[in-house]
Amino acid sequence: MKHEVDLNKYSLRTDLMIEAAKNVDNLKLNEENFDGVKVTEIDIDDEKSKVIGKKVGKYITIEFDDVTDINNRKKVLDVFATQLSKLVKLESKNDLVLVIGLGNDSSTPDSLGPLSIAGINVTNHLYELNVVDEHYQRVAAITPSVMGKTGIETSSIIKSVADSIKPKLIIVIDSLASTSLSRLNKTIQLTNSGISPGSGIGNRRKEISLETLDTPVIAIGVPTVVDAITIVSDTINYMVKHYIYSKQHLNIPKYKLIVNNNYLKEDIKINNQDKETLLGLVGKLDDNELKLLLNDVLSPIGYNLIVTPNEIDYLMECLSNIIYSGINKILHDYDENKIV
Amino acid sequence: MKHEVDLNKYSLRTDLMIEAAKNVDNLKLNEENFDGVKVTEIDIDDEKSKVIGKKVGKYITIEFDDVTDINNRKKVLDVFATQLSKLVKLESKNDLVLVIGLGNDSSTPDSLGPLSIAGINVTNHLYELNVVDEHYQRVAAITPSVMGKTGIETSSIIKSVADSIKPKLIIVIDSLASTSLSRLNKTIQLTNSGISPGSGIGNRRKEISLETLDTPVIAIGVPTVVDAITIVSDTINYMVKHYIYSKQHLNIPKYKLIVNNNYLKEDIKINNQDKETLLGLVGKLDDNELKLLLNDVLSPIGYNLIVTPNEIDYLMECLSNIIYSGINKILHDYDENKIV
Amino acid sequence: MKHEVDLNKYSLRTDLMIEAAKNVDNLKLNEENFDGVKVTEIDIDDEKSKVIGKKVGKYITIEFDDVTDINNRKKVLDVFATQLSKLVKLESKNDLVLVIGLGNDSSTPDSLGPLSIAGINVTNHLYELNVVDEHYQRVAAITPSVMGKTGIETSSIIKSVADSIKPKLIIVIDSLASTSLSRLNKTIQLTNSGISPGSGIGNRRKEISLETLDTPVIAIGVPTVVDAITIVSDTINYMVKHYIYSKQHLNIPKYKLIVNNNYLKEDIKINNQDKETLLGLVGKLDDNELKLLLNDVLSPIGYNLIVTPNEIDYLMECLSNIIYSGINKILHDYDENKIV
Amino acid sequence: MKHEVDLNKYSLRTDLMIEAAKNVDNLKLNEENFDGVKVTEIDIDDEKSKVIGKKVGKYITIEFDDVTDINNRKKVLDVFATQLSKLVKLESKNDLVLVIGLGNDSSTPDSLGPLSIAGINVTNHLYELNVVDEHYQRVAAITPSVMGKTGIETSSIIKSVADSIKPKLIIVIDSLASTSLSRLNKTIQLTNSGISPGSGIGNRRKEISLETLDTPVIAIGVPTVVDAITIVSDTINYMVKHYIYSKQHLNIPKYKLIVNNNYLKEDIKINNQDKETLLGLVGKLDDNELKLLLNDVLSPIGYNLIVTPNEIDYLMECLSNIIYSGINKILHDYDENKIV
Repeated sequence: MKHEVDLNKYSLRTDLMIEAAKNVDNLKLNEENFDGVKVTEIDIDDEKSKVIGKKVGKYITIEFDDVTDINNRKKVLDVFATQLSKLVKLESKNDLVLVIGLGNDSSTPDSLGPLSIAGINVTNHLYELNVVDEHYQRVAAITPSVMGKTGIETSSIIKSVADSIKPKLIIVIDSLASTSLSRLNKTIQLTNSGISPGSGIGNRRKEISLETLDTPVIAIGVPTVVDAITIVSDTINYMVKHYIYSKQHLNIPKYKLIVNNNYLKEDIKINNQDKETLLGLVGKLDDNELKLLLNDVLSPIGYNLIVTPNEIDYLMECLSNIIYSGINKILHDYDENKIV
Repeated sequence: MKHEVDLNKYSLRTDLMIEAAKNVDNLKLNEENFDGVKVTEIDIDDEKSKVIGKKVGKYITIEFDDVTDINNRKKVLDVFATQLSKLVKLESKNDLVLVIGLGNDSSTPDSLGPLSIAGINVTNHLYELNVVDEHYQRVAAITPSVMGKTGIETSSIIKSVADSIKPKLIIVIDSLASTSLSRLNKTIQLTNSGISPGSGIGNRRKEISLETLDTPVIAIGVPTVVDAITIVSDTINYMVKHYIYSKQHLNIPKYKLIVNNNYLKEDIKINNQDKETLLGLVGKLDDNELKLLLNDVLSPIGYNLIVTPNEIDYLMECLSNIIYSGINKILHDYDENKIV
Repeated sequence: MKHEVDLNKYSLRTDLMIEAAKNVDNLKLNEENFDGVKVTEIDIDDEKSKVIGKKVGKYITIEFDDVTDINNRKKVLDVFATQLSKLVKLESKNDLVLVIGLGNDSSTPDSLGPLSIAGINVTNHLYELNVVDEHYQRVAAITPSVMGKTGIETSSIIKSVADSIKPKLIIVIDSLASTSLSRLNKTIQLTNSGISPGSGIGNRRKEISLETLDTPVIAIGVPTVVDAITIVSDTINYMVKHYIYSKQHLNIPKYKLIVNNNYLKEDIKINNQDKETLLGLVGKLDDNELKLLLNDVLSPIGYNLIVTPNEIDYLMECLSNIIYSGINKILHDYDENKIV
Repeated sequence: MKHEVDLNKYSLRTDLMIEAAKNVDNLKLNEENFDGVKVTEIDIDDEKSKVIGKKVGKYITIEFDDVTDINNRKKVLDVFATQLSKLVKLESKNDLVLVIGLGNDSSTPDSLGPLSIAGINVTNHLYELNVVDEHYQRVAAITPSVMGKTGIETSSIIKSVADSIKPKLIIVIDSLASTSLSRLNKTIQLTNSGISPGSGIGNRRKEISLETLDTPVIAIGVPTVVDAITIVSDTINYMVKHYIYSKQHLNIPKYKLIVNNNYLKEDIKINNQDKETLLGLVGKLDDNELKLLLNDVLSPIGYNLIVTPNEIDYLMECLSNIIYSGINKILHDYDENKIV
């Protein structure tokens, strides 16, 4: 199927380095697994930056299962705090840290930033009064809201405040868009390369980074929404794997008895012949071509919906709990695990 | 592709009569269009009930565009109120109406019932005191919450209260599941046949109807969630239409200039040859077979997510506004349009 | 000053036994102090009931300091759970407990019940499915809202549900009115004598008790509001104490240097001579006469406001946290302290 | 009674000009009454500013009855919009107006600012895109939260943002403290003299005004809290009036039949003899001395509570509705009355 329409209409952008990285050869991924929580660290230098189209910096991706389970939540918190501590470089407890919760508190899937800020222990004003215990870091926090509610470019509000209070470190928290069903609400990305507010959910806005703010920036992002194109293209890929797996196992009696067989845990070799038999012309497309086609199909009729799981309210509560507890733990030397 | 696994694992159930009806021949649909708001009325008698697997009663479906637009919202309110008045049969202002908001106020896409109740003018206690203006209907309202929060079957709470206060009419409001992308948050179904709480979002619970409560029941439902199977199967059907349409227009220069061409507005004839060319074995499946396959693919790996649009908070506000304004208008003889 | 107007216009009612008890001679009060948290236990039998005008039963009052302090909150939780366990009599984990959160979730000072219910672990529906760990009690929970929002007498909703699910024990949580500034948000009353919903804040409604429901009822109440009459009469009493204390210490040089001298901690003997010198005719009134006068002064002009501290949102969060954590601990045998 | 303690411990500050004005002779008050809504306009020049201790500028006070009544709310909106229009000086629809909602959205009585901002139509970002109807003013809006949550002086956040976006006019909305029971939630003050955030509820913070921001500032304030000292001193004054009025009418038979006699509507002459007979030494104090005494009595024991009416949630909804509707009406030339 020759593709006649504009290839740029659907930007195949991802906010997650780990998704961008899978398209690049020879990229060193440092992977570790902590009791089911997977951490992937990728360092992007100047050269790799050009290839992969992502900014120079360290990217740490934490992947995990359902955080509505309290035991899993505690495990993710421990890993998150440990990884965050790798990026936080401060010389003294008096160094001011500005924590920024991006997003919209009246839109549930975009409320991760504001919900996280609500749990951050803020101390900057107490430092002015000299009434802070020595284990507390100097911390300020803002929730600049979104341009649709303020009328002001969010990066402009942040730059104004940062120029005024001159923090030594900025930590930014935001909801992201996922380009994979499997990472939705199951991934935290940490990076020292900055972020563009609303890049996931709304239009990409001006960048918040060391370059724009003259201050080191740590960005913490969680993919909380996904578009219909991603759901369909992921599912089509799963169909292929399911088909090949089923064909191989069709005559094995045991297979038929297995309910909810998780075929993704098997090593399945995709061959083009099977793919095209199953899917015809669609089976001839690579991933990018498939997404472009889906964009051509869904966008003109207004159905490339951006969606979020129906239990998003509780997921946001659990995820923000991990983020503010982890930040408090690292900045303020908390001994206690505050997960509830 | 021979389908070896159990066909019953994915129930092809729909909460919407209009979706069930499209699979049935010779069903009389009474359609009207009010300035872009489409109303379809279907009467199901005993005989049709057996064929279609839906309860006997009148089903009115109102279909509309984006209700975040205030002008459209006003139009939908007018139509909703008019249609609701067809089902409301009361003899006197003293006849007690019990309005019930099903669902979970701490889960946004399931909060339509509780949000609607918050806007209902309640007067039953004022009737006891004889301090009500004569144009107000006698109205009580409850939000019984969901079984996950109460530990009690919702229909059992409702039956207990109804047996105690003995209303002459019950109006039940609930969120539903959609089996079509195009109806998500764009449809209101009214019926006098009753409802099963949580049928859309959670597990189907015990019925609320004239049969179980000995009181006429009007159910008002809006589809607010959709599952991944529906998103994928709808998209695959759109792919076929898009493919056939594109093939027909590929050599017409004008076509290439049309951005966001809504091919659904054209009359497209689906032929099996094109469908199979495009989609291979998948193209040979009918709608039900496709959904069963998608269930086999997605359910074992836990990815048949139930999702809702990311702007769901604002959509719930707009939709509940229409519902409580319409109910107040019909029951209490409001002259004013309360849409804001 | 002869009091010519009707003495019944202002009912000197209190929801707290400990306040009623101070007007009664020879009442045995069992007092204990747990690291600053004071517990007073009073048993009212038939005879005392007639004297004091309160129902027969055990009344346990827990008095404490500011619960916005986390350490204090933990202490209060421990005492609350211990006292609650004295009243909870269950034979088996399968005995159903119905927990009821009275009050209005859209009015902050009246939201203690609904906020507490949100933290209760509900298990009744899981018992039906036989999927509960053995240390969990069988628990259901409802928030019947208030008559102004439902149009239905709250006790009637509760009776309907209780008759239907037949619990072995009912626990009711409600906000109360305080008749003392010093107990506002600093007292929890536990009793097995029942409660009347909205007795503090709205009009007194029909009783919820063993007599009306045929089921043992434990009522948990916290005074969260106070009226202007109480504020003024308490302050006038403090003025007298402050005056006598100041007179005694006026010539002691050290006294003048003490900022914020808490004179209430001193043993101050009130004499009528000083009281009348300070306050004239008002100084001749006893407590009840003073409150009746204040009612005559404030009620006709609409200024006997019922008020709550301006930090009430955070106070409700802290107090409900104590209540649901304590209930979960006693019913479900939690080892962990869930205070956050 | 000689007053030995520090007279400065209780600052007799009021946020309301109309309360400050009553202590000053020869101040010209321009009063008008619009169907029960009273408007008082006071112009403070350099000379008067020194006497009254308030900044130079125009102060407009709107006094009204219960705004939970919808008809009254509509009247108040009309008057508010008309008075606001007197202070708004703009040359073109392109002149940027920055609306600022001071206060804390998680503390109900301090949430007037954030609640009002939620209703403001924001257009600045649409102006950048040239997609605004000509009747819309260019408007941006922020909610800078409070220092306890950000760690940053609120005026500093505002100055940073204002310096960056350079508005032509700033409108600031805040909750105030009342020094009178009768004005609580029943007054709106408009002034072009600026405001100090949190002046009512928290500590007085740095000023927001033409002087500090180089931009004209209109401040809109509503007293939403009152302290116990005010409640008691107001009540003591009412006691005196009630006593004198009762004495005069004691032998008039008709008087005894009048229930809820509003004696404040009568012209009552206070004489010192009666005041001292009723209240002894306390009766000899003037208003300021009484408040200082009450401060000495209540502050050392921690009972000078700042309180708010128990129906504050609904009051905030009604008051913010008036404010945002009025601002939208004046800035954006709305024809419709948006009160609901």
